[in-house]
Amino acid sequence: MPAPAKFTEFVDANADKFIQRLADAVAIPSVSGEPNHRQDVVKMAQWLDGQLKSLGVTTKLVDLGKHVMDGEELQLPPAILGRIGDDPKKKTILIYGHFDVQPAYKSDGWDTEPFKLVVDQKTGRLIGRGSTDDKGPILGWLNVLEAHKALGLELPVNLRFCFEGMEESGSEGLDDLIRSETQKGKEGWFAGVDCVCISDNYWLNDRTPCLTYGLRGLTYFKVTVSGPARDLHSGMFGRAVHEPMTDLIALMSKLVTPDGKILVPGVDEMVAPADEEEKKLYSSLDYSIADVEDAVGGKIAISEDKATVLMGRMRNPSLSLHGIEGAFYGAGAKTVIPAKVSGKFSIRLVPPQTPEKVNPLVHKYLESEFAKLNSKNKLEVECLHDGKPWVADFKHWNYEAAIKATQAVYKKQPDLTREGGSIPVTLTFAESLGVNVLLLPMGRGDDGAHSTNEKLDRSNFIEGSKLLGTYLYEAAAIAK
Amino acid sequence: MPAPAKFTEFVDANADKFIQRLADAVAIPSVSGEPNHRQDVVKMAQWLDGQLKSLGVTTKLVDLGKHVMDGEELQLPPAILGRIGDDPKKKTILIYGHFDVQPAYKSDGWDTEPFKLVVDQKTGRLIGRGSTDDKGPILGWLNVLEAHKALGLELPVNLRFCFEGMEESGSEGLDDLIRSETQKGKEGWFAGVDCVCISDNYWLNDRTPCLTYGLRGLTYFKVTVSGPARDLHSGMFGRAVHEPMTDLIALMSKLVTPDGKILVPGVDEMVAPADEEEKKLYSSLDYSIADVEDAVGGKIAISEDKATVLMGRMRNPSLSLHGIEGAFYGAGAKTVIPAKVSGKFSIRLVPPQTPEKVNPLVHKYLESEFAKLNSKNKLEVECLHDGKPWVADFKHWNYEAAIKATQAVYKKQPDLTREGGSIPVTLTFAESLGVNVLLLPMGRGDDGAHSTNEKLDRSNFIEGSKLLGTYLYEAAAIAK
Ligand SMILES: [Zn+2]
Ligand SMILES: [Zn+2]
Ligand SMILES: [Zn+2]
Ligand SMILES: [Zn+2]
Repeated sequence: MPAPAKFTEFVDANADKFIQRLADAVAIPSVSGEPNHRQDVVKMAQWLDGQLKSLGVTTKLVDLGKHVMDGEELQLPPAILGRIGDDPKKKTILIYGHFDVQPAYKSDGWDTEPFKLVVDQKTGRLIGRGSTDDKGPILGWLNVLEAHKALGLELPVNLRFCFEGMEESGSEGLDDLIRSETQKGKEGWFAGVDCVCISDNYWLNDRTPCLTYGLRGLTYFKVTVSGPARDLHSGMFGRAVHEPMTDLIALMSKLVTPDGKILVPGVDEMVAPADEEEKKLYSSLDYSIADVEDAVGGKIAISEDKATVLMGRMRNPSLSLHGIEGAFYGAGAKTVIPAKVSGKFSIRLVPPQTPEKVNPLVHKYLESEFAKLNSKNKLEVECLHDGKPWVADFKHWNYEAAIKATQAVYKKQPDLTREGGSIPVTLTFAESLGVNVLLLPMGRGDDGAHSTNEKLDRSNFIEGSKLLGTYLYEAAAIAK
Repeated sequence: MPAPAKFTEFVDANADKFIQRLADAVAIPSVSGEPNHRQDVVKMAQWLDGQLKSLGVTTKLVDLGKHVMDGEELQLPPAILGRIGDDPKKKTILIYGHFDVQPAYKSDGWDTEPFKLVVDQKTGRLIGRGSTDDKGPILGWLNVLEAHKALGLELPVNLRFCFEGMEESGSEGLDDLIRSETQKGKEGWFAGVDCVCISDNYWLNDRTPCLTYGLRGLTYFKVTVSGPARDLHSGMFGRAVHEPMTDLIALMSKLVTPDGKILVPGVDEMVAPADEEEKKLYSSLDYSIADVEDAVGGKIAISEDKATVLMGRMRNPSLSLHGIEGAFYGAGAKTVIPAKVSGKFSIRLVPPQTPEKVNPLVHKYLESEFAKLNSKNKLEVECLHDGKPWVADFKHWNYEAAIKATQAVYKKQPDLTREGGSIPVTLTFAESLGVNVLLLPMGRGDDGAHSTNEKLDRSNFIEGSKLLGTYLYEAAAIAK
């Protein structure tokens, strides 16, 4: 059962209005990882709550309590629970999204102001922080709701919504909320949910839609080396004291090789190597080394072998060094010996890895490597947040509906993929609700989520809104 | 010939007024290394020029032209040349100082606002950026001039002044000015100069004044690794591409060991090891490992051997890693793969090392280590600025005068030391003018120049002002 033609026509006819709403959402700098933007995340929750209410959704802002960030106790932004439709004859689909975004500064290298949506008429790009991650997809659902309300159409399924404002900072408070709502059974907001749909990842390339049935997990570390009570002048104290930066850089250099091998003993080894048959799966995807290099804008693929590159992204763990807190980071030449420096790195995990298994290996390795340095400085290793990897059954009707919807809207067969990123809540939904979870991406592989000049193509926003609506009709029509 | 009693009495009587003038100077955030503060450096030059004029000094603001910083063309702040006295029967002493300061943010860990001088009544500390480096010492000279003007006293020597506003950023433009003035001979501002006095370093400890006859040089490097066209999401591209941070950290880890040995081949080897006799010189200084550890606020001395620690600071080269530009530096957990990262490090040089001899070794080594990484990323190595080391003859009358002045004011024999920091202009004066240069510090070893909570003790400011004046009388009295 495809969606009614007047639904898709309405989406086309209202495209400019929908883009203006996306501009309104992008304009709220809802950066969850920076305390000074916490109120903007709250503002974003209120804005989204207002939109949902005006489209007929019953909502509840849930207080998730407090947490500590950078030594400061902060109120968590509220989660939004929503419901529309209670027909016991219909399927009930739970939609998840996040309305917080990554930090962004023009000085990071953006060509435009990050929190002002720029519509590039020539390329059709909608450029701004959150355009594709994850405000665009959330607004796709608002577009579906608005079309049905305006046209007086009944929704083909009951919908439940769960939107959060802390995804980019470890989804603090959300797991507890999901578990407590699930435990309420029939009284809970997730009662009767048949499946979950999440739009928070991307196509592999810029031409073929995909459905995603696997995600890597993540464990994020902060390694702090401290020694002097204050920053020192390198002329006065260079070669007289143990310098924290020297120790930290030595430790960070022992985590991963330039070709991606993880040096923490036991971490890579936890994952069985792919056999020839599995390698073939990756060789046959509509995604090439040239696609990877186009997406990143440089000829820097880690191997000449397609399967190696794609498995590096999808089915192998990875370790990335993100930066250093506390050291000199500006332009120019400052001759300081920083007193306390914290290296940040993360490991993407794949089954059967879990944070529980990997974290102790990281702690032990860093402590033993630090001991070898014979430094009088102090080491502290913290895991800032973590989440398990996830793999779903892609033969479920939830995936079947999404495949049919993709064929209807894009006239193409979607790629079925595992993805390198982490959306820890996916696993919480799968485990707590015990239902199938589908990742149905809206954006393209070159959107630049978490990066400078993040964008969502106009066509992905508009066709993607049609895809979400059509998926509901296909899910409604299919036998459970 | 000690200074007249009414001079030292005047300094004591006007201490609070002098401290207020220091507060006025600290309030101007004359950070030369940050383009947005360039106008404040100019403002500081104008303020100082006004002070000098009001105290009877003939001055000239010298336009030093333009330079490029962070890709931006900027006007250099003017240098100030000054002269007072033209008696051919008197000696002529040239005074140097710098009125620019290091960057400072409260968020770096300052207990007070960096650009507001805080007078701690309990400890007698005058806390603020530039208090000791180098506004306090410059104002010491203003105090001397003011005392003589107010008391109607004739200065015992002719004075020449050369004050600059780019010392913390490589003294751009100053070498050219000094050389061109020197070449003018009798027509130049430095005609007839018999010796130079610079107050821009510190006592070894917090109890014994010192004179300094040697300084390390400096060569400052920026090592850039770039690859992707933009920052990447580590979930999407981790282990699929060569990451610039991985390469940069690997390179930075190959520069220096945790106990200070420089790994660039040929650099440490250029300096002959100290023999037992030389080691004894360092063992006998009034400075201990406990002093070093008190000054830095941590038990992190690089050795248990006093001579090793002091030679590390004074007569051996050192390499410090300062930080990384372009990587994630904030608090919290950002999962970015930075597109382009620049490591900053510097090497302190001692005779016979020179930038000309050391820089090619650094370039060659980094390029060869990078080649070993087999990365497809790009490497760029730049030297941002450099300066040769310097050693003076401490048996010259210029030093004799300073020793006598120290005995008169502090009732103590000063330590004669070499120092770890770099003041490249020292060497330019020595080479261009061909006269003896004396470093006569005002502040203490724990002042925290270039660090958080920089301070100058009230007693060092006041007794130091007396020391500068007394030195002029002793220099006048001594036979050339
Ligand atoms: Zn997201
Ligand atoms: Zn994200
Ligand atoms: Zn200085
Ligand atoms: Zn300085």
